[in-house]
Amino acid sequence: MLIDGKKISEEIKATLNGESASRRIKLAIVQVGEDEASKKFIERKIKFAEEIGIKTRVYNLPADITTNKLRQKMAEISHILENDGVILQLPLPARNATHSVAGGPEQIKTQYVLNGIIVKKDVDVLSSRAFGDFATGHSKILPPVVEAVKTIFEAYSIDFKNKNIVIVGAGRLVGKPVAVWLINNNATFSVVDKFTKDLTSFTKKADIIISGVGKKNLITPDMIRDGVVIIDVGDAAPEVAEKASLFTPAIGGLGPLTVAMVFKNLIELNK
Amino acid sequence: MLIDGKKISEEIKATLNGESASRRIKLAIVQVGEDEASKKFIERKIKFAEEIGIKTRVYNLPADITTNKLRQKMAEISHILENDGVILQLPLPARNATHSVAGGPEQIKTQYVLNGIIVKKDVDVLSSRAFGDFATGHSKILPPVVEAVKTIFEAYSIDFKNKNIVIVGAGRLVGKPVAVWLINNNATFSVVDKFTKDLTSFTKKADIIISGVGKKNLITPDMIRDGVVIIDVGDAAPEVAEKASLFTPAIGGLGPLTVAMVFKNLIELNK
Repeated sequence: MLIDGKKISEEIKATLNGESASRRIKLAIVQVGEDEASKKFIERKIKFAEEIGIKTRVYNLPADITTNKLRQKMAEISHILENDGVILQLPLPARNATHSVAGGPEQIKTQYVLNGIIVKKDVDVLSSRAFGDFATGHSKILPPVVEAVKTIFEAYSIDFKNKNIVIVGAGRLVGKPVAVWLINNNATFSVVDKFTKDLTSFTKKADIIISGVGKKNLITPDMIRDGVVIIDVGDAAPEVAEKASLFTPAIGGLGPLTVAMVFKNLIELNK
Repeated sequence: MLIDGKKISEEIKATLNGESASRRIKLAIVQVGEDEASKKFIERKIKFAEEIGIKTRVYNLPADITTNKLRQKMAEISHILENDGVILQLPLPARNATHSVAGGPEQIKTQYVLNGIIVKKDVDVLSSRAFGDFATGHSKILPPVVEAVKTIFEAYSIDFKNKNIVIVGAGRLVGKPVAVWLINNNATFSVVDKFTKDLTSFTKKADIIISGVGKKNLITPDMIRDGVVIIDVGDAAPEVAEKASLFTPAIGGLGPLTVAMVFKNLIELNK
């Protein structure tokens, strides 16, 4: 059975629409460079915002901006009163190593830049302060992907605390926040990645797989058992749907739900 | 082979002694209530401090102090200029649930109290801010137990990134910080606890077990394979030493090393 992230997202949208109606809320979105995929993700956020009456402002910054300049911009944008929430669209543009050698711009220090976002506007829970509040159980919001995963568990009555969970890839946006949330909920889980020796020995025993590597066809049907739940951002081959009891499709799965949770957080932080 | 935490601790002490000699550093230690085990742990820290020329001051607070009062005290103690580092000795006294019902003091909110420690004096890396800096790779110190585990890996040339690691118990002081550190280092690991169904299926496959539950004889020889490395705070039955390739004894193992790392952090934060 496919997990209908789009449908759950629409339900959340309806709720949020009611909650945001009486307020004037604005979300600032920072894009560095011109990456097409990033643009698409930003467009989806703008569309969602429009549908629930939330304003957005996109700040376009040049791809060759320095770490210090970008950090300063994030702080400035954070301190503008009208901006109620601030997002830095990730990933930041990759820079050729030879640039640095040649005196060109060095790779941007992503975490340092994210730390320019003030905690009460950090809807993505990515700054050190916001993440620390979350990791120590002291935050009123959860990282959007965690909120999305939690909502899926609730919608499909999955008692995750008694399951064997496998997280594939512990990156900043998916695996890491989910792992920290599972720690805080006394769940049993394993963290593996594409470099893990005998990855299949983990995935084959999983009741639930949460995969956030971003590598197509990393998870194939031979690696899973019948009836597994797969929450995925696009790592699973489409054929896994035949063995999985529940499965998030690459389109209309975790993505729209995570977008919805960005706005849930924005409204929550502005209550 | 036993991991000689005491010996490594002595080596670190010698190094720290050289580093602390030219400075005047003071560590504040807060004890709430009269717990005997806590007193012993505090005595060990005082002894270590004396041996490297660091001053200590112990603040004894009553067991029935309220959360708000204790938080305020932690902030006050943190803001005293002479206190270069601040420790809240855990665990805080447990309170009988019937007390609350009867109008007595409620259970102290540990994390809220810890958040009264300012980040540059938080040698245990337990406040939300310090933990967030650590979790996002933005801290110049590591939680003491992480520093201890890392030192063991280095001292015994254990390439942990290519091993199957099992963390038993994800508590605030041991399992959780170690798990977060492993995430940040792209390691493969599982988090289990005493409630995990079929705990043995995890421990039996582990190359390295890090156990911080605080439950004697939780890990028995039948649960492990020959040659495993066990880093433990007292959960493993002594007989596991016969199968393990490396093993931290309950006394002179992880404990003294962790104490040494508290002072390593104190000196590092005051450089």
